[in-house]
Amino acid sequence: MATSSEQQHTTKALELATQALFLSNPNPRVGCVITSPDGQVVLGQGFTQQAGGPHAEVMALRDAAARGNNSLQGATAYVTLEPCSHQGRTGPCCDALIGAGIGKVVASLADPNPLVAGQGFARLRAAGVEVVVGPGATESRELNIGFFSRMVRGTPWVRMKTAASLDGTTALANGQSQWITSPAARADGHAWRARACAVLTGIGTVLDDDPQLDVRDVATPRQPHLVIVDSQLQTPLQARLWSVPGRSTCLIYTAVRDEAKKAALESRGATVIHLPNAQGKVDLGAMLQDLGRQRAINELHVEAGHKLNGSFLREGLVDELLLYQAPRLLGPGLGMAQTAPLQSLADGTALDYISVDRIGPDLRIVARVQGRDRF
Amino acid sequence: MATSSEQQHTTKALELATQALFLSNPNPRVGCVITSPDGQVVLGQGFTQQAGGPHAEVMALRDAAARGNNSLQGATAYVTLEPCSHQGRTGPCCDALIGAGIGKVVASLADPNPLVAGQGFARLRAAGVEVVVGPGATESRELNIGFFSRMVRGTPWVRMKTAASLDGTTALANGQSQWITSPAARADGHAWRARACAVLTGIGTVLDDDPQLDVRDVATPRQPHLVIVDSQLQTPLQARLWSVPGRSTCLIYTAVRDEAKKAALESRGATVIHLPNAQGKVDLGAMLQDLGRQRAINELHVEAGHKLNGSFLREGLVDELLLYQAPRLLGPGLGMAQTAPLQSLADGTALDYISVDRIGPDLRIVARVQGRDRF
Repeated sequence: MATSSEQQHTTKALELATQALFLSNPNPRVGCVITSPDGQVVLGQGFTQQAGGPHAEVMALRDAAARGNNSLQGATAYVTLEPCSHQGRTGPCCDALIGAGIGKVVASLADPNPLVAGQGFARLRAAGVEVVVGPGATESRELNIGFFSRMVRGTPWVRMKTAASLDGTTALANGQSQWITSPAARADGHAWRARACAVLTGIGTVLDDDPQLDVRDVATPRQPHLVIVDSQLQTPLQARLWSVPGRSTCLIYTAVRDEAKKAALESRGATVIHLPNAQGKVDLGAMLQDLGRQRAINELHVEAGHKLNGSFLREGLVDELLLYQAPRLLGPGLGMAQTAPLQSLADGTALDYISVDRIGPDLRIVARVQGRDRF
Repeated sequence: MATSSEQQHTTKALELATQALFLSNPNPRVGCVITSPDGQVVLGQGFTQQAGGPHAEVMALRDAAARGNNSLQGATAYVTLEPCSHQGRTGPCCDALIGAGIGKVVASLADPNPLVAGQGFARLRAAGVEVVVGPGATESRELNIGFFSRMVRGTPWVRMKTAASLDGTTALANGQSQWITSPAARADGHAWRARACAVLTGIGTVLDDDPQLDVRDVATPRQPHLVIVDSQLQTPLQARLWSVPGRSTCLIYTAVRDEAKKAALESRGATVIHLPNAQGKVDLGAMLQDLGRQRAINELHVEAGHKLNGSFLREGLVDELLLYQAPRLLGPGLGMAQTAPLQSLADGTALDYISVDRIGPDLRIVARVQGRDRF
């Protein structure tokens, strides 16, 4: 059983981790609190910075030094993920903790990264550091569900965002869909874009709406990457999506080989990836593998139309729904995804509600496809 | 400003009123607390009983007597609606309070019943009783929204109940709809039936599902009336709805004159009412007038199919939606109501969310058509 002081420090470390939500991608969101050996005094704290920057443990050590806490001999470090043992773009956090004289590490859970995977704990213990694992494990994994998905499954956590009326209509029969939900809901949607490694859409949405698909309505230190499913390489070279400041990467998945179009899109800064399926469309499953293994995408925020949403659902690729539900009835029109009629209620996609909140006049419902988070 | 002691007694009186939820129809749900003149001691309390039985004030006076509190001289009565001044099936509550020596009445709001409408307050004041009006007004009106609707508009408060998947499907294309939501949600739905004066359905539902439409899954002292919209008098004489113990009234609204069918249905205990519109259907607006003015229906619980729901919505007759939303996706099928495609998002039916709750695995959303409660 964790003592109340331990729980308090773990809770604080998790709060710190949350501050890395828009920042640390594709690294995990980790927080660290260093306390005196008796747990009475917080000596330093920190959270993971942008990729390539310091991890939470190093930030906490620096914070302790900045506060004048020069001796950390026997101190305890609360950290929401196993400290890393490998040399990446930064040095191993284990060595930094050991070098500072930390006597005990309380970690929420093991890092699923095969380059760490318990070796951090082993290295700490070998150096005589007491290691406790467990407090805050559920919360830390949940905060890093995309990182865990990528590390364990090799694919991103796929979150499909839609906006609908209370009767399930996402666009009128004549196509009109802007705006079903409120400015408050759209701003909230930008916060969910901001936490994702990448925002994905389809060529239909690009051609119909000419969207930017960036984060504008909330402050963010980085723009998520953009992914376009564009079987025929129809993305216009003058689309607004090319003019987003701060977006480093646009990945276009296609089913055609067209070197001229490819060269033109690459001249705009895109990376074009050829992944066709037998039907001449983009192989979405293979695309997710590529996004996970080659592009380091943790959370993939899908903001697409009715047809592409239907393809994701039919192929069983959706992990979570993010639904904004407006308080209005719109009657017949397009639903959230184009799928075939079912023969039996039992054939539906079973979900669990994760959270339900009011956002301005609207509802925000997060629902998870049953069993998809068991990896 | 109400003192904290006054607020506490008003809150208690509202809690008592809530105990009349399934009981007092078509009388309003009213609670009464009688305290010592200094507000320190509760001397008696009560709530409205079944129609024809004692009102809240009389129940509280009886309770005081049963507790041995024989002198109520100068006592204060907290009551959530204006005490009645007219001789109904029971004597006027005003006279009972005056006769008992009550010195002060704190009432939540005036009774909208034209037979009372301020006369209760006037009668109390004329007898030297101090009258304060206001504490708990919003809650009391909300608890009695159907009674206020009937008294002020002459029509019931129309609450449309539906059960849908998260993508808005209420039945598969093949008609399958049992059960989209959980047993917990269905039991909760029975509690909303129990508080209604009447449950309404259409002949389509009667023929398709042969439902009982009674209250079974929660305990109730009374069964709501049943209303069937049956343009052609097709309700089968052997339907299960005829076999509900304790249901006193079945009203069948029709658009045809067919004396043989009418006589047969009346032999089963129904009352058949002929209210056709120009299209040969039941005139739903006239039906609501009849239900309000002739049948004393406060809350009308509509539990109908796609077509009749569509008619209610098209004609602007719905006040509130009670939606149970199951955590599943069902894809294409029937929606909650059959309506025509809109040309503009602005033409949708604007709602306000009143409450959102988890009921077992499902969501229960109560949403009100904007402006409908301003009467």
